[in-house]
Amino acid sequence: MCLTKRPLFGNPPAHTAHTSGSSSTKILDIMAHTNQMNMPMGPWKITVYDQEYYQGRWWEFTSCCKNIMEYGMENIRSMKVECGAWVGFEHSSYNGQQFVLEKGDYPCFEAYMGSHGYRVERMMSFRPIYSACHKESRMCVWECENMMGRQWELCDDYPSLQAMGWHNNEIGSMKVQSGAWVCYQYPGYRGYQYIMECDCHGGEYRCYREFGTHAHTPQIQSIRRIQH
Amino acid sequence: MCLTKRPLFGNPPAHTAHTSGSSSTKILDIMAHTNQMNMPMGPWKITVYDQEYYQGRWWEFTSCCKNIMEYGMENIRSMKVECGAWVGFEHSSYNGQQFVLEKGDYPCFEAYMGSHGYRVERMMSFRPIYSACHKESRMCVWECENMMGRQWELCDDYPSLQAMGWHNNEIGSMKVQSGAWVCYQYPGYRGYQYIMECDCHGGEYRCYREFGTHAHTPQIQSIRRIQH
Repeated sequence: MCLTKRPLFGNPPAHTAHTSGSSSTKILDIMAHTNQMNMPMGPWKITVYDQEYYQGRWWEFTSCCKNIMEYGMENIRSMKVECGAWVGFEHSSYNGQQFVLEKGDYPCFEAYMGSHGYRVERMMSFRPIYSACHKESRMCVWECENMMGRQWELCDDYPSLQAMGWHNNEIGSMKVQSGAWVCYQYPGYRGYQYIMECDCHGGEYRCYREFGTHAHTPQIQSIRRIQH
Repeated sequence: MCLTKRPLFGNPPAHTAHTSGSSSTKILDIMAHTNQMNMPMGPWKITVYDQEYYQGRWWEFTSCCKNIMEYGMENIRSMKVECGAWVGFEHSSYNGQQFVLEKGDYPCFEAYMGSHGYRVERMMSFRPIYSACHKESRMCVWECENMMGRQWELCDDYPSLQAMGWHNNEIGSMKVQSGAWVCYQYPGYRGYQYIMECDCHGGEYRCYREFGTHAHTPQIQSIRRIQH
């Protein structure tokens, strides 16, 4: 699944196994996992590269990757999402800043990271986003922690929560009833991202510290559904 | 309309006139313009500050601002959009990178700029976005310049054009039939932004050089409507 040469743009990458022992094991793990789920190569597919503009070493994944270093890569500097929606993480083991990754081409860091004061140029783990049932997506947000205070049910995309009637720039807690969502710190889908899924935490996020390991404020000003 | 003190958070700023001649003139210009349109303070309102976190000198606007330096400000470092949708520009006279600004709080540069390699920390002019009729927004995109090649009509938000069936990461030309739209270089509403309105250019953007003065590629991977 890995080549040191750049594949031709637009061509599907060849499935050439890496020669190192640990990587070969991992390929088998992924394939076994995929077969267990009875999906040919899964509904998800992502190709990651260790250099910008789809250069250098690369890997194809159809399932989660807990630590890219186990595949002999020090970082991900470009990628192509070919199928499904994914979430990338700043650190290994799905920790740190989150980046929603939908189908398309990401030639450099700037293409997948958000706009933060603390600029991340690192993506060490990633996994598919489950429950991305777009049209029936439903979630509730509350003014205060533990589902207290004013409540609002969401079923659409909201580039500005305040424009839609929310009273301030914070959300205290939330519950995802169906689908997967991405919440953003600033209006217009900018700033820190928090991926919210009905299958994680039972869909409940009772305070901002549960939004993600990088969350340090309840500030959320735009929210949208993640499409599969 | 300007104070050197910080207003209390959440309180409407007092309308104290600036003492400099040119600024006072500009205030009158804005008011005259507003009255001509028969709107009390207009359906648009933005407050801009020359320091982060709503500190320092500030101005309230209900209409366009061609050059913030005419108001004695060297830059805009934070802002609150209180009403309507706006577009900010990197340079004076509505040139350079574009930033869509919807209702909400923007405490620092990172809150309003996108994620670019060429990092902008400057916003020198801005204006209201007209024609923001959200629910009836319609636009067409074409594969090639001058409305040639494959065509697709849009009437929704598309965080990934490729996920919705578009065949590559570029758009050759487009025409806005109604409403206002924002196009982004990368999936998930990231990268360079291009504001498209049916009232500008007759809604026609015949090649990528017409997308904006900062456009240097036809790469567009996500598009959404701008809500009023």
